[in-house]
Amino acid sequence: MAEMVGNLLVAQSGGPTAVINASVAGVVQEAARHRCIGKIYGGLNGILGILNEQLIDLGAERPETIEDLKFTPAAALGTCRYKIDFKKKPEKAARDMDRLFQVFQAHEIRYFFYAGGNDSQDTADKLHGEAIKRGYEMRVIGVPKTIDNDLPHTDHCPGFGSVAKYNACTVMEVAADVSSMATDDGSCCIIEVMGRSAGWIAASAVLAQRTPKDPPHIILLPEIPFNEAAFLAKVKATVAEHRYCIVVVGEGLKNADGTEYSADKSRLDAFGHPVLSGAAERLAELVYGKLNTKTRSVKLGYAQRCAAHYASATDSVEAGACGRAAVRAAVEGKSGFMVKLVRNAGAEYRWTTGLQPLSDIANVEHLVPRDWISADGFMPNEKFVRYARPLIEGEVKVPTLDGLPKFAVLERKTIAQKLPPRK
Amino acid sequence: MAEMVGNLLVAQSGGPTAVINASVAGVVQEAARHRCIGKIYGGLNGILGILNEQLIDLGAERPETIEDLKFTPAAALGTCRYKIDFKKKPEKAARDMDRLFQVFQAHEIRYFFYAGGNDSQDTADKLHGEAIKRGYEMRVIGVPKTIDNDLPHTDHCPGFGSVAKYNACTVMEVAADVSSMATDDGSCCIIEVMGRSAGWIAASAVLAQRTPKDPPHIILLPEIPFNEAAFLAKVKATVAEHRYCIVVVGEGLKNADGTEYSADKSRLDAFGHPVLSGAAERLAELVYGKLNTKTRSVKLGYAQRCAAHYASATDSVEAGACGRAAVRAAVEGKSGFMVKLVRNAGAEYRWTTGLQPLSDIANVEHLVPRDWISADGFMPNEKFVRYARPLIEGEVKVPTLDGLPKFAVLERKTIAQKLPPRK
Repeated sequence: MAEMVGNLLVAQSGGPTAVINASVAGVVQEAARHRCIGKIYGGLNGILGILNEQLIDLGAERPETIEDLKFTPAAALGTCRYKIDFKKKPEKAARDMDRLFQVFQAHEIRYFFYAGGNDSQDTADKLHGEAIKRGYEMRVIGVPKTIDNDLPHTDHCPGFGSVAKYNACTVMEVAADVSSMATDDGSCCIIEVMGRSAGWIAASAVLAQRTPKDPPHIILLPEIPFNEAAFLAKVKATVAEHRYCIVVVGEGLKNADGTEYSADKSRLDAFGHPVLSGAAERLAELVYGKLNTKTRSVKLGYAQRCAAHYASATDSVEAGACGRAAVRAAVEGKSGFMVKLVRNAGAEYRWTTGLQPLSDIANVEHLVPRDWISADGFMPNEKFVRYARPLIEGEVKVPTLDGLPKFAVLERKTIAQKLPPRK
Repeated sequence: MAEMVGNLLVAQSGGPTAVINASVAGVVQEAARHRCIGKIYGGLNGILGILNEQLIDLGAERPETIEDLKFTPAAALGTCRYKIDFKKKPEKAARDMDRLFQVFQAHEIRYFFYAGGNDSQDTADKLHGEAIKRGYEMRVIGVPKTIDNDLPHTDHCPGFGSVAKYNACTVMEVAADVSSMATDDGSCCIIEVMGRSAGWIAASAVLAQRTPKDPPHIILLPEIPFNEAAFLAKVKATVAEHRYCIVVVGEGLKNADGTEYSADKSRLDAFGHPVLSGAAERLAELVYGKLNTKTRSVKLGYAQRCAAHYASATDSVEAGACGRAAVRAAVEGKSGFMVKLVRNAGAEYRWTTGLQPLSDIANVEHLVPRDWISADGFMPNEKFVRYARPLIEGEVKVPTLDGLPKFAVLERKTIAQKLPPRK
């Protein structure tokens, strides 16, 4: 494959994670090692910023700042939820594509890296296809990112290990609190975590158990239809045995008919998903109302996906490696792939990176397998634990200032615009 | 004062904190230095366990376990919400007192330490008074503990610094997440924190600001009556300026008429307080409904008061010192006091411990002073920041096992009961 000389553009998309910036650091640090790569640009707010020709010079950032991205949460470049939808809005999508390639061409972008989840990999796939169609030489590689861990073909997704670690720690701490307050009346605490379709995040709360008797006592996954009677019976039995009960619920818990347990159908997000809120609150009302057991709820919300202060070192390292692998693959001539994490065989946890065609990724959701969940559906089993345990190993060291984290802040030296403003 | 020879009993009461066990460690470690103190007992579940003669031998625990209590959250001895109420239930209260002194006498308890908040200090005060009335020689010292920071006479309360640190870190991280997602439509995130009457916890979220422009943008305190119109105007202006708005709300936010913004009056806790839930959820509905701005909520709940993984080292050290000071005071002959933290004059943060009569403490609530809050009521000012900033300094080191905290677990060697069971 002939060497391709040109500039690099990296952007971030979708919901942030604790380690999505580590992937950007990996891209920037690896790119600096390859002479074929000229300028290293970042696109602000994903595709949306690129449409608006909002580029910054990542090569001009201090190397220390780039290094510090490895412990800095959220999207340092900004992110977006913006879909190029050829099916529903073909004319707008075509205009967007024209504009994006005008921007790429104006800035001689020959390497494009997009860090994101399912929807973002779909965008990357479309860009790859358009580049070929238009005869514009550009190598497009997707970098996996999602706390939801629902991308197919990769063993797991950067971002998941950190949310799993933070949530499991939180469940362990909350359980210590609730159990120490538990007197004869009994009590219940319901902790709501993210996960719209896939229950990976909820399931990972099982890691808080050091023995099978330990909390959490019940984990409700979106994959398992909610059975109110069985749930209430399990809460009652748990309170009778332990005097308290810790429940973890994925926000996207489903009823038997497939509707969401707590969907507010009057509110939709940019992708047309119903906005979910209050699964824990609804369950708390149920438990209190039916069992007369004192019940409290916790809704971690955004706090869980940006908890860099308790991120997994394994996750951060892997996220960085995915960024580096993306650049290496592109330099070697690959395009139209997503970097994936591959788990090696053997008892000890070892991994490498690999590549998967983007067309295999887009819009496919990887759910928790049924045989990784107990027969009663209330707890992931040892197969899940074996899978997830290594992903939360190690703590990321975050420097502090005045007792709080000191995260990286990019200088964001803007690149002069060469095109007329987008209409 | 004559040396008093006898056994020691320590117990914990009320809601746990990240550092209440550090106070127990301080008591146990200091007690071991005084020959007049014989056995070192712990009472399980506060007064409730003592009524049931459930004592354990803290002197038999491994010294390493006691040391590890300094980073172990929740109440290692268990706690309770149990009130000896002479006004409402005089006969039951009298029976309880008889029983407690039977237990004290049976186990030759001459030193009693009770770690807790307002209600617990009230219990300690009553025990002190009863001991004098009954001519039973026992020295009673209260150890301050409450995340709410609402005890009077002490500069601040052990437990507060840790919740302030964790919450401020969480607000900083959530703000990074939300701001990185902020595109033109704007968004709002509302974070609910604890604090029923006093706004110390909510106010401490201001520590997440490194400049006055930083998030959080609005802090709603229980001390300031909620003004819906002013609040919505401020959210709107903030979203217009920054494209996002971070709001922190204390769970006990009040309406102008003094009623709680989100009280569910159908549910009462053991002290007759209405159970509060959903201030953030209600505000989110308000913002979305009136401003059509995408809004998400976070409810930290119990997660904030047991977050040992991000506890304040300053707080942990002070909590331990309060336990040690309590023992020293009792050995010196004092009784009927609560240990307090005294801030020394001067620019640099320095503190000592002092003593305050328990009768000055019980049932008095210390609120955030009005002149520590901005004129518009939406933000604590520099007086508050100067007060709170030193309290979150330093990180407690927590050892890990399999990627999660490894907290202390007491062996809980039980003391043989000497009395017939409580009726």
